[in-house]
Amino acid sequence: MGNADHVYPSTNVERAPRVAIPPPQSSVKSLKYNLKETFFPDDPLRQFKNQTTSRRFVLGLKYFFPIFDWAPSYTLDFLKSDFIAGITIASLAIPQGISYAKLANLPPILGLYSSFIPPLVYAMMGSSRDLAVGTVAVASLLTASMLGNVVNANENPKLYLHLAFTATFVAGVFQASLGLLRLGFIVDFLSHATIIGFMAGAATVVIMQQLKGILGLNHFTRSTDLVSVMRSVFTQTHQWRWESAVLGFGFLFFLLTTRYFSKRKPKYFWVSAMAPLTSVILGSLLVYLTHAEKHGVQVIGNLKKGLNPLSFTDLVFVSPYLTTAIKTGIITGVIALAEGIAVGRSFAMFKNYHIDGNKEMIAFGTMNIVGSCTSCYLTTGPFSRSAVNYNAGCKTAVSNIVMALTVMVTLLLLTPLFHYTPLVVLSSIIISAMLGLLDYEAAIHLWTVDKFDFIVCISAYAGVVFASVEIGLVIAVAISVLRLLLFVARPKTFILGNIPNSMIYRNVEQYLNTSSVPGVLILEIDAPIYFANSGYLRERIARWVDDEEEKLKSSGETSLQYVILNMGAVGNIDTSGISMLEEVKKVMDRRGLKLVMANPGAEVMKKLNKSKFIEKIGQEWIHLTVGEAVEACDFMLHTCSPGPLKEDSEAYNKV
Amino acid sequence: MGNADHVYPSTNVERAPRVAIPPPQSSVKSLKYNLKETFFPDDPLRQFKNQTTSRRFVLGLKYFFPIFDWAPSYTLDFLKSDFIAGITIASLAIPQGISYAKLANLPPILGLYSSFIPPLVYAMMGSSRDLAVGTVAVASLLTASMLGNVVNANENPKLYLHLAFTATFVAGVFQASLGLLRLGFIVDFLSHATIIGFMAGAATVVIMQQLKGILGLNHFTRSTDLVSVMRSVFTQTHQWRWESAVLGFGFLFFLLTTRYFSKRKPKYFWVSAMAPLTSVILGSLLVYLTHAEKHGVQVIGNLKKGLNPLSFTDLVFVSPYLTTAIKTGIITGVIALAEGIAVGRSFAMFKNYHIDGNKEMIAFGTMNIVGSCTSCYLTTGPFSRSAVNYNAGCKTAVSNIVMALTVMVTLLLLTPLFHYTPLVVLSSIIISAMLGLLDYEAAIHLWTVDKFDFIVCISAYAGVVFASVEIGLVIAVAISVLRLLLFVARPKTFILGNIPNSMIYRNVEQYLNTSSVPGVLILEIDAPIYFANSGYLRERIARWVDDEEEKLKSSGETSLQYVILNMGAVGNIDTSGISMLEEVKKVMDRRGLKLVMANPGAEVMKKLNKSKFIEKIGQEWIHLTVGEAVEACDFMLHTCSPGPLKEDSEAYNKV
Repeated sequence: MGNADHVYPSTNVERAPRVAIPPPQSSVKSLKYNLKETFFPDDPLRQFKNQTTSRRFVLGLKYFFPIFDWAPSYTLDFLKSDFIAGITIASLAIPQGISYAKLANLPPILGLYSSFIPPLVYAMMGSSRDLAVGTVAVASLLTASMLGNVVNANENPKLYLHLAFTATFVAGVFQASLGLLRLGFIVDFLSHATIIGFMAGAATVVIMQQLKGILGLNHFTRSTDLVSVMRSVFTQTHQWRWESAVLGFGFLFFLLTTRYFSKRKPKYFWVSAMAPLTSVILGSLLVYLTHAEKHGVQVIGNLKKGLNPLSFTDLVFVSPYLTTAIKTGIITGVIALAEGIAVGRSFAMFKNYHIDGNKEMIAFGTMNIVGSCTSCYLTTGPFSRSAVNYNAGCKTAVSNIVMALTVMVTLLLLTPLFHYTPLVVLSSIIISAMLGLLDYEAAIHLWTVDKFDFIVCISAYAGVVFASVEIGLVIAVAISVLRLLLFVARPKTFILGNIPNSMIYRNVEQYLNTSSVPGVLILEIDAPIYFANSGYLRERIARWVDDEEEKLKSSGETSLQYVILNMGAVGNIDTSGISMLEEVKKVMDRRGLKLVMANPGAEVMKKLNKSKFIEKIGQEWIHLTVGEAVEACDFMLHTCSPGPLKEDSEAYNKV
Repeated sequence: MGNADHVYPSTNVERAPRVAIPPPQSSVKSLKYNLKETFFPDDPLRQFKNQTTSRRFVLGLKYFFPIFDWAPSYTLDFLKSDFIAGITIASLAIPQGISYAKLANLPPILGLYSSFIPPLVYAMMGSSRDLAVGTVAVASLLTASMLGNVVNANENPKLYLHLAFTATFVAGVFQASLGLLRLGFIVDFLSHATIIGFMAGAATVVIMQQLKGILGLNHFTRSTDLVSVMRSVFTQTHQWRWESAVLGFGFLFFLLTTRYFSKRKPKYFWVSAMAPLTSVILGSLLVYLTHAEKHGVQVIGNLKKGLNPLSFTDLVFVSPYLTTAIKTGIITGVIALAEGIAVGRSFAMFKNYHIDGNKEMIAFGTMNIVGSCTSCYLTTGPFSRSAVNYNAGCKTAVSNIVMALTVMVTLLLLTPLFHYTPLVVLSSIIISAMLGLLDYEAAIHLWTVDKFDFIVCISAYAGVVFASVEIGLVIAVAISVLRLLLFVARPKTFILGNIPNSMIYRNVEQYLNTSSVPGVLILEIDAPIYFANSGYLRERIARWVDDEEEKLKSSGETSLQYVILNMGAVGNIDTSGISMLEEVKKVMDRRGLKLVMANPGAEVMKKLNKSKFIEKIGQEWIHLTVGEAVEACDFMLHTCSPGPLKEDSEAYNKV
């Protein structure tokens, strides 16, 4: 202020466009805008604008039931493709369904039930054309381990079953609410890295659990961590059944070979898709012919004929175990959602159509609510099955309907055929599916690109494998969130230098050919200035200035006169941040330095204006670009001595 | 790629400085740098560089005991100033100490003990020259309410006392560890707004608690929330003692008048500083002469003569209440730290010297550890007392020593004089001190500058007043952290426009005179691209493009050809963010749009390079500034049709 004001060249003032303070906006309007951006970033109501009421009703119906949108234009050609895809995924769904139900410690028939009703619901409400609905291994395992902690499935199967339905119901309600309340972004907090590590960990745990089936053990630990499982396996070496092991490894080899083959020749995708069902048939025949069930090879046994019985009377809402059911429902619900939405989105991207995350959540939620009332447990869109569906050439969700009808026929007529199916074959099927989830290539990619993401991934993996599935998840999410907080708490600051023959200033560590401006230190702050970092930034800016002054002193160059803060990357500022800037300004004044700002954004300018900081620093010391700020400093350096600046500063009026 | 590559003008390539990928750095080195920035942002070891061992020892001693640094240059003039300041703060410390000890439900003598040993410790270890050590109201109240939840101070005074010592010990250990482990930044998470709201809430609660003393009530609720207190007060209207109330309001009026006077005429600061002691003397005389203690005016009663007894044998580490003591210690410790450091820093700024937060934490911690072993409870640097110290012209921490010696004399000789001091005077002293903490002007300032900070402040206030001190604190911290997460989860994106007669591009909502470039959409992202926002950004970018295309279509202008992302404010990116960019790139390709980047920073370039995204987008489509990116697009628009671009895109090879 003061003198500095008068000597500032008027020509310069006219030439340089001043930094604008954005036009004032009412609080209500800006609140409305922020709420919209937080909860409706995809603007789902856009299509309802300027429409008649009846048209809005039709659009609303189509919004919640996309089937009304695509059904009218459905063709016979589509049906042909969908039929083939549906039959293919059904052949995968039947053995996988039974296997995963076993994994969840639930009656095997539930796996078939869960492949009948939920796909029909999804076909009406889902917006993905490629997703194949079914149960998934990870959620099954989680159900088993979380519910198993409070109720033993063997001792009290009925209560366990009812809790599983309740958990599914809770998961459904939770998923649908997330969608309805537009809170879908909660799923975003499961980062890519978390999911890779978590999935691989869960796959490892699931594979280890299969050692029970493969080795034909009767007793097995209920814990899922590596140490407990290994102890359980190696303390019972005398119980290992070689018949079981031979059968298991044989089928595993068969499954892996077919998968390898199909991977090499994508045209023959059906070879690996049919392999599980073939294994089941071959295994059953083998047992039936050799009576191996009497020699230690466990079989599925009787499966009840008939469609899903209703189960909404089985939901328990008054029970000492209710909190466990709710916890299980929420955790499995979130994980199922994360997988289902990621899968839907990937295939939508391949085929270039759009998936609305919140809408999908409502579809998944409804599917599980309906499922829990019709003897199904948690379903979602598993990656493996959806990939087969996609490869089989599915066109619409009709492939899910075809699958459901095939399963229906199986339930009505073919369940007796599974009587002799050996459990070990189911174990082989699970292992072969799980091996695909050990995505070590993705982990290597994380390591190359982003070490922190790799740490998140490994933590999730180690947490799941050595502690428990929930702990792994919590650790990974906590580390991920910590990273966000650290980004804000410890923002990057760096010195800018001039790029030769330009007015452009950039990070000197990134651009090695930059040159510094004598007497001027240019700093960039790379994050919003909030309470969490204002203390740090005050220290850090002071240190940059100290370092620069020391460097200049030792080299005998012009002493430091100006500190320019490039605010271009400062997205926002709060009152703590403004106090920090005020302190920095005072300290600079006292040291005889002038604080200059370049390119503050709209939010920042608004707040600096309201808090009168602009008046304190002086409007003329806020520039549109770093280049202009440097020019103004340069002009001052060559037209007047730093003296007046010093004497003019507030500090000398105060002390 | 492909065609686009060939038609790109070679002259242009040479002219524009390419965006540099920063030179590769070993992981260890960058980890080391990040750790240093996280834990040693102030570089405390700098002074130890290039020094001999003995010199390092001396420097280390001076580091931990700053008294060795300033004592050699101490002068008689300093002593004169410090002596006056010390006597002044002692006259405040004695009545305040007794009052706050009563507030904490501890024996009043503890207030004097706590003003004797801790100031001596701080004088040696502290680096502030203005801080006056003593107990504070908020921490006292918290101790009373948290320990009071498990042990009744009246029924079991000994256990209560021992728990208070233990909590103080825990607080000291916690404070010192934060300092030693360089975790001082945890205190930063108590934002300015949180502290204002929290302090005002605590002051309100403390004032309400004084109604007990003012109204001369014998029974009072142990809860601190407004509803309980009001119920307690108004259900006992028949117990109110007018003698007590008259005395209380009389002294309160006296104290407030002197404070108002001193505030108007800062030269007479000693008037308000001496007022509490004057009140105590007047009150005691009045009671002594009128025998009011027999008419319902409660008095302090006997105070034991003599210095602090040792108390380290009283610390309890095996007790069912240990967890409560630990919790109390940690919470009061953090709050005391936040106040002490903020106070020290403010005065250091006035006088232009530096305070090292982590070092101060070690000093506070040691002070409380020593205090807990010598019959003191939690002390810190209260604002009111330090302000008096500063106004009284203190020069160094010697004023604390003078205060301690004065208190020592009092303890040895003068304690009998406090026998007749009426409790109601202490209540008046507390109320008058607390009224200063109701900083409504600061709250109004928050409302004008930053609505969100105001919400944080009000939540803290309401939480403390209507629920409890801890709940208020937790709510405020949670909301503050949520804000940080929301900043990352919902980053601002906006359109940039050209500022007339320049190559500069800025936010069109901030700068109203900008003009758009036909066929080009320029977007800026204002936050790092992390897993928490990559989903949102994908949707949001798509919506910007949709909006722009719609707008162009309805106005019949040139159709959209290029989307430029200004990455200048993107501080970092993780693998989820890179996947998002890849998806955006694919979607753009499919829509026949070209994705262009401007000014990615060092971190971002490093990761885009490692993940091969640079190859995917094409090195020639990453520009140093938005201006250059627009120029390149413009050149393309006028030399070739958009056709080849479209046919060339990946999308057509895939689908």
